Amino acid sequence: MQSLLRQILNDVQPLVGEGKVADYIPALANVDPNQFGIAIFSNDGELYEIGDSQVPFSIQSISKVFSLTLAIKHYGDTMWQRVGREPSGLPFNSLVQLEYENGIPRNPFINAGALVVSDMNQSRFATPHYAMREFVRKLSGNPELQTDHKVAESEYEFRYRNAAMAYLMQSYGNFENEVEDVLRSYFSSCALRMSCVDLAKAFSFLANKGFSNISGEQVITQEETRQVNALMATSGMYDEAGSFAFKVGVPGKSGVGGGVIAVVPNRFSVCVWSPALNSVGNSTAGVAALESMTKHIGWSVY
Amino acid sequence: MQSLLRQILNDVQPLVGEGKVADYIPALANVDPNQFGIAIFSNDGELYEIGDSQVPFSIQSISKVFSLTLAIKHYGDTMWQRVGREPSGLPFNSLVQLEYENGIPRNPFINAGALVVSDMNQSRFATPHYAMREFVRKLSGNPELQTDHKVAESEYEFRYRNAAMAYLMQSYGNFENEVEDVLRSYFSSCALRMSCVDLAKAFSFLANKGFSNISGEQVITQEETRQVNALMATSGMYDEAGSFAFKVGVPGKSGVGGGVIAVVPNRFSVCVWSPALNSVGNSTAGVAALESMTKHIGWSVY
Amino acid sequence: MQSLLRQILNDVQPLVGEGKVADYIPALANVDPNQFGIAIFSNDGELYEIGDSQVPFSIQSISKVFSLTLAIKHYGDTMWQRVGREPSGLPFNSLVQLEYENGIPRNPFINAGALVVSDMNQSRFATPHYAMREFVRKLSGNPELQTDHKVAESEYEFRYRNAAMAYLMQSYGNFENEVEDVLRSYFSSCALRMSCVDLAKAFSFLANKGFSNISGEQVITQEETRQVNALMATSGMYDEAGSFAFKVGVPGKSGVGGGVIAVVPNRFSVCVWSPALNSVGNSTAGVAALESMTKHIGWSVY
Amino acid sequence: MQSLLRQILNDVQPLVGEGKVADYIPALANVDPNQFGIAIFSNDGELYEIGDSQVPFSIQSISKVFSLTLAIKHYGDTMWQRVGREPSGLPFNSLVQLEYENGIPRNPFINAGALVVSDMNQSRFATPHYAMREFVRKLSGNPELQTDHKVAESEYEFRYRNAAMAYLMQSYGNFENEVEDVLRSYFSSCALRMSCVDLAKAFSFLANKGFSNISGEQVITQEETRQVNALMATSGMYDEAGSFAFKVGVPGKSGVGGGVIAVVPNRFSVCVWSPALNSVGNSTAGVAALESMTKHIGWSVY
Repeated sequence: MQSLLRQILNDVQPLVGEGKVADYIPALANVDPNQFGIAIFSNDGELYEIGDSQVPFSIQSISKVFSLTLAIKHYGDTMWQRVGREPSGLPFNSLVQLEYENGIPRNPFINAGALVVSDMNQSRFATPHYAMREFVRKLSGNPELQTDHKVAESEYEFRYRNAAMAYLMQSYGNFENEVEDVLRSYFSSCALRMSCVDLAKAFSFLANKGFSNISGEQVITQEETRQVNALMATSGMYDEAGSFAFKVGVPGKSGVGGGVIAVVPNRFSVCVWSPALNSVGNSTAGVAALESMTKHIGWSVY
Repeated sequence: MQSLLRQILNDVQPLVGEGKVADYIPALANVDPNQFGIAIFSNDGELYEIGDSQVPFSIQSISKVFSLTLAIKHYGDTMWQRVGREPSGLPFNSLVQLEYENGIPRNPFINAGALVVSDMNQSRFATPHYAMREFVRKLSGNPELQTDHKVAESEYEFRYRNAAMAYLMQSYGNFENEVEDVLRSYFSSCALRMSCVDLAKAFSFLANKGFSNISGEQVITQEETRQVNALMATSGMYDEAGSFAFKVGVPGKSGVGGGVIAVVPNRFSVCVWSPALNSVGNSTAGVAALESMTKHIGWSVY
Repeated sequence: MQSLLRQILNDVQPLVGEGKVADYIPALANVDPNQFGIAIFSNDGELYEIGDSQVPFSIQSISKVFSLTLAIKHYGDTMWQRVGREPSGLPFNSLVQLEYENGIPRNPFINAGALVVSDMNQSRFATPHYAMREFVRKLSGNPELQTDHKVAESEYEFRYRNAAMAYLMQSYGNFENEVEDVLRSYFSSCALRMSCVDLAKAFSFLANKGFSNISGEQVITQEETRQVNALMATSGMYDEAGSFAFKVGVPGKSGVGGGVIAVVPNRFSVCVWSPALNSVGNSTAGVAALESMTKHIGWSVY
Repeated sequence: MQSLLRQILNDVQPLVGEGKVADYIPALANVDPNQFGIAIFSNDGELYEIGDSQVPFSIQSISKVFSLTLAIKHYGDTMWQRVGREPSGLPFNSLVQLEYENGIPRNPFINAGALVVSDMNQSRFATPHYAMREFVRKLSGNPELQTDHKVAESEYEFRYRNAAMAYLMQSYGNFENEVEDVLRSYFSSCALRMSCVDLAKAFSFLANKGFSNISGEQVITQEETRQVNALMATSGMYDEAGSFAFKVGVPGKSGVGGGVIAVVPNRFSVCVWSPALNSVGNSTAGVAALESMTKHIGWSVY
């Protein structure tokens, strides 16, 4: 495994820094693009890591998987009345599709879908973001995980497009709480700072039939685990989900902070991080590293 | 395995006939909806079957996988300049997305994408449909496979929407041959008649790293096999690909003739057939049977 | 003229009450649909009226012409950098087009466009709605004009779709003030209550090269007057602008309160009111009355 | 009048040649962009002209008004079941809107609408293009008018997008004849060659309540004349109809050959020609000339 990580690092080195760090808010724009880390956490409890694998970064959209898991734990199958399970076929923040489909977002990993999921969690928890952070601390075994409030604040300040989506869903009756409140919870969850090691551990239950070796509990059922993985496989990588399945072939989820998490069912979870993004908003070196990984292990789910 | 088939049949029986047989052309509308068959062909060469598993039916869109495989054999990776690999997020025959994306169809399994693939095969073969039929006869080990020319003729007569898509792609420079010629080849391939047994055998190379136990040859490489399966997983089931992944969890492809093929990598290929379709055009009982199957074997790729 | 009004009333009588009173907010839903009134105010200062011509009603979108006029007075030609002058070709509150056109609404008479115009007026006036009401009181010569605060409040409560549009425009940098503030001003202006007589007088400057015989001032220039009339002619009647031009042939603007104002350049302004609306949201009897009018006078601008 | 023409020529001179000659087919691309002509034909039979007013050019989309008039003469009001009367709000050859509106084009001046109108004329005439040319020869009083068959042939060769639209409409049941036949008639009508003088005369009936002083007959009724003018006013100038109404304020129709025709009801018809086009496909100098004209005469229909 360790030699696999070295091979991947070697393959990907020339791509590190290629692309553009997310700069839609100042707080994200200052990250050094020349960072790169990987961590693998296997179902038998081994941790393998290389590069900047312990540097915390803004998890951003990777948080959508945590929110979804939290909502599934409470709402089970009923939640799919408010959000779809189909790939979107359009850029991740498009209002067009939302309008044509009467306020039901296509899946929980586009922004509109994640907002509806946040709205569900808002209805359930008194302080949704603290509930979420507590949940993620337990999954990752790291009680020190912090929210970057400056990032959350800055996202809120530039909330316009997300606000537009939330209000549009409210106009279709698919929003229960105050838009402003849900936006604050949502941005706080996106602003969690975690390292590759933290994330590989926190996602390990998805590689392990829903059981977390870290927290020692069955997080969601085996069937729900397969479902979350299926959603990541079809919709986890913005408008690159199809070619990610084509080239990498395992469920994955990325964030504009440069993190990409992937799940190799029944074997391990892996997190790659490198801040410079390609044109659709996924980490250039991160996606390349996962492609290199599946080439080397000669295996994908398909 | 045989008892699995009996369980599935039992589970699905009440759904057989539920929905609506494809009736956009008269030649398809006359099929008896109360038919149901399954065939499984395992990588170790065993065949399991139940119900109407030897009744030939119109394979329709399932032919898109054969056309794609034929094109991959010749064009390799270069073919992805003319067709994408992303889910479409819109009904299978929409021109809207084609127009917004400048004539490059989203994937080879929506009609526009299949037309481009047919155009590629048209550039390569003198008589593309005969080349295709020969290819499928070898893959299925059934030299008697026939084309239903009445169906092909009838599809051609109502070709308008497909013609519109082909001409639109030609307006963007993404079409090489005469539209009318390609349409005829395309409709002929859709009009192949095959049984569940034929299809399970013909698709077995996709469950077996690209090697066909039937024809005794490596059809495409192991990597290309994973890629075709990945495409089926993200885009094989019209606008139900996501929920098919969510509920069934294996690569699949359906046709309006009521057939659904699924691939369980490294294990077996399976074909289910029942002519009555649900609202998005997939076989009602067919999809339910595959869902029942993955529940019983407690396994999906995810 | 008076006999013309009687003829129109006679023609239209059977249509009064046909359609559906706007019911998206309770405060509008209670209006008696069986009301009908017309008032004509000619350039030589004569007033002609029939039916419920002095009953005040909620002017709703007719207020968009007043807002536009107020903005033109201040911003002149520079305002067209923030809002277009083309018909929209889509229902009046669609976000789709707004997204494709990067937050620049197509014209000032769709909701998005009116919100941008309100945002301009918000930047200019300390209390925009009072400035607007004062302006309209002067134009109509009726110092008693009132705002129906219950209607404004109710619109605000169901502001979701308008909020979505405003935030979407803000995401494109085409909004200067707080969304919530502009929405309040906007809804207050829509909630002005005016009668046919009030409106015919208030719009008379548009029939009179920009000069108001009521307030005794040149409201906007002769050229600007022609421009406002041109905008009403191409975009004033929601998704019925074209057939209104086809059948009636004069600039017009309608509101969901059931009012329709029309301008016969160099001759007179006319306001018709009847609360029941057709399928695109224009007064059924109102549009029919104006059609009857142009038939009887055998004249249109075209 | 003659001095008005000199003033306009003077105003517009710097713009002649600005923009880009239509080059989507070779036969159009070779026109010298530095040409400019105007002809005015008044209701009292006077002809005024300046510049290259007698040079024939390809009338292209201006022919849509002739086709429409021909169809109205035969089908009257029934024709509006197959084509709408609303502005399109999207580029002139978009399939998107056609798909959303089930194959009913928005108006007769976008390509899809003109194809439906051509299909109507195809159902009526044995040799539709000869009927059309004969009609236009009579309207213009020029029996020598010719079709540029090279242009028609070249348009047909690049027919793809128009073919796509026609087939799409056929898929919705809104097309009666063979697509290829209608396309040939359509392109032949677009390929008529006429000068400014020819066009000003041929359009004079629209300025004159439907009566042609040239052919000495009532071409269509007075009411139909107003309707055609209304359609030109709301939809005649591609995606610039609104700002043309705003700036020029009279009904107009343009073609990619660089011609623009305008109708000043009850006074005169005017044709301007200059081949270089602006970004939406209207003659740069042509539109500017008409804007200059309405400024000088201080008059528009609004």
